[in-house]
Amino acid sequence: MADGSYLAIDWGTTNRRIYLMDRAGTALEAERDDRGVLMLSVDDYPTEIDRLRARFGAIPIIAAGMVGSTRGWRDIPYVEAPAGIETLARAVICMPAADVWIVPGVSIVAPGRADVMRGEEVQVLGAARAGLAPADARFCQPGTHNKWIRVAGARIVDFSTAMTGELFALLRDHSVLAEMMRGPVTDGPAFRDGVEAGRGGGLLTALFGVRAGVLLGRLDRADAAAFASGLLIGADVAAQLAPGDVIHVLSGGTLGTLYTSAIELLGGVAVPVDAEAAFLAGIHLVKEMLDA
Amino acid sequence: MADGSYLAIDWGTTNRRIYLMDRAGTALEAERDDRGVLMLSVDDYPTEIDRLRARFGAIPIIAAGMVGSTRGWRDIPYVEAPAGIETLARAVICMPAADVWIVPGVSIVAPGRADVMRGEEVQVLGAARAGLAPADARFCQPGTHNKWIRVAGARIVDFSTAMTGELFALLRDHSVLAEMMRGPVTDGPAFRDGVEAGRGGGLLTALFGVRAGVLLGRLDRADAAAFASGLLIGADVAAQLAPGDVIHVLSGGTLGTLYTSAIELLGGVAVPVDAEAAFLAGIHLVKEMLDA
Repeated sequence: MADGSYLAIDWGTTNRRIYLMDRAGTALEAERDDRGVLMLSVDDYPTEIDRLRARFGAIPIIAAGMVGSTRGWRDIPYVEAPAGIETLARAVICMPAADVWIVPGVSIVAPGRADVMRGEEVQVLGAARAGLAPADARFCQPGTHNKWIRVAGARIVDFSTAMTGELFALLRDHSVLAEMMRGPVTDGPAFRDGVEAGRGGGLLTALFGVRAGVLLGRLDRADAAAFASGLLIGADVAAQLAPGDVIHVLSGGTLGTLYTSAIELLGGVAVPVDAEAAFLAGIHLVKEMLDA
Repeated sequence: MADGSYLAIDWGTTNRRIYLMDRAGTALEAERDDRGVLMLSVDDYPTEIDRLRARFGAIPIIAAGMVGSTRGWRDIPYVEAPAGIETLARAVICMPAADVWIVPGVSIVAPGRADVMRGEEVQVLGAARAGLAPADARFCQPGTHNKWIRVAGARIVDFSTAMTGELFALLRDHSVLAEMMRGPVTDGPAFRDGVEAGRGGGLLTALFGVRAGVLLGRLDRADAAAFASGLLIGADVAAQLAPGDVIHVLSGGTLGTLYTSAIELLGGVAVPVDAEAAFLAGIHLVKEMLDA
């Protein structure tokens, strides 16, 4: 047990990813489940830790993400941007269960706006420090709450969050568009038409246009979800992007593909970054700093 | 029963307003209930009509609104804009229950967009024909789906619909902002700050800023709902308004106040129009044309 191994957990809103790490920062095992913070109450966390210890032994656990939020185990104070990986490591909080550490999120307050992140900071700073992306770069981290992050000198210096993914889910699950949004969302012509339509602003009217388009036979019902996704992602990307901007996209899966497509349609250059490798690089740097 | 009286029904998504009308178009009785189309299945309508007949006698019934939609009693084809009150009257559909008439909605198809309305057309054309507003005017009809309507020569020539009200409800009831949006929405400083913040675009990030602002103590939790409402209405109005534009606002109640405030904050002139009087004027014109 004193071999330097530990558990790194990317503990988000809906998912949890658990990595058994060796002392060199290599993931020996990885698994993913749905025991995100929405599934758990405050009192569930000690039990969760006991289960992990029963399986993996009494090794340190270091977690990042929404586990450290008002909705998670405990509200860990944000560190303020600009923030580097050392800033995070200095503000890690030890939880009552022995040897469980939670990495803080990052906040920013600028004139007229305020923003917060939890979890993305480990990925972005891990990427910038491990050479997965330049130390000066812009990142897009697609998800329920899409993050746009600017890193300079391997420190987070600015960021903003768009409710793009959550709005899509609300529209698909609860809105007047819901029954029309049963089709797949892929990077096809309907999605791309949506991106073009969404780039120009007027999102509130463009969204209702999905319903009208289907009712009037101008939009195929099977394409409505992809078109609506394009509208939202197009509006999101257009608000951030100038032609020629290089954006490092931290996401695998469909969402990463959709954002990459929208960024390129709108004149930017999208560079993929392995989000998991970035998280592991970042969390291992924090762990090393804790041990130092 | 042959005295020319009839029932006029503004039969919407969530509410139903029933007016007992005399032959001159005066409402003798008025009531409002929650038996909108969302409360009813297709098979419920004949029973609803029987109940109305039992109370009011075997007089004609003329209804407008979502009752004539895919979610209502029967999908009545839209008439295409440009559309005047005569256009509506010619396309009224008689339902199987004797002497029940449903007024069609209006559709528009323009390059790159399509839109539909059901119910607002009776109000707007009623207002324009009865002198409640000029025959050439722009209207705003706040509601779950806010309508912006351009009337020329007392005909609807263009319109678009914004999902403003529905998005507000989705965010308040189902989103990550929900627990923060328990405060009142009034035309106060928080709403007006939201309008100013919403006018500049970037709605997707501004909405997440509500959460971040509360978490970081920059926005009072009690003000969050009003601020979010301001963001949405500000974005909606800003997309439609040029300075000096005169907008006729067809709505009483809080929403009318909020839109009036936002229109004036953003440099427009808001003119109130009594929405109920406009509906009654419009539906009575349709009734007269049916009888002629």
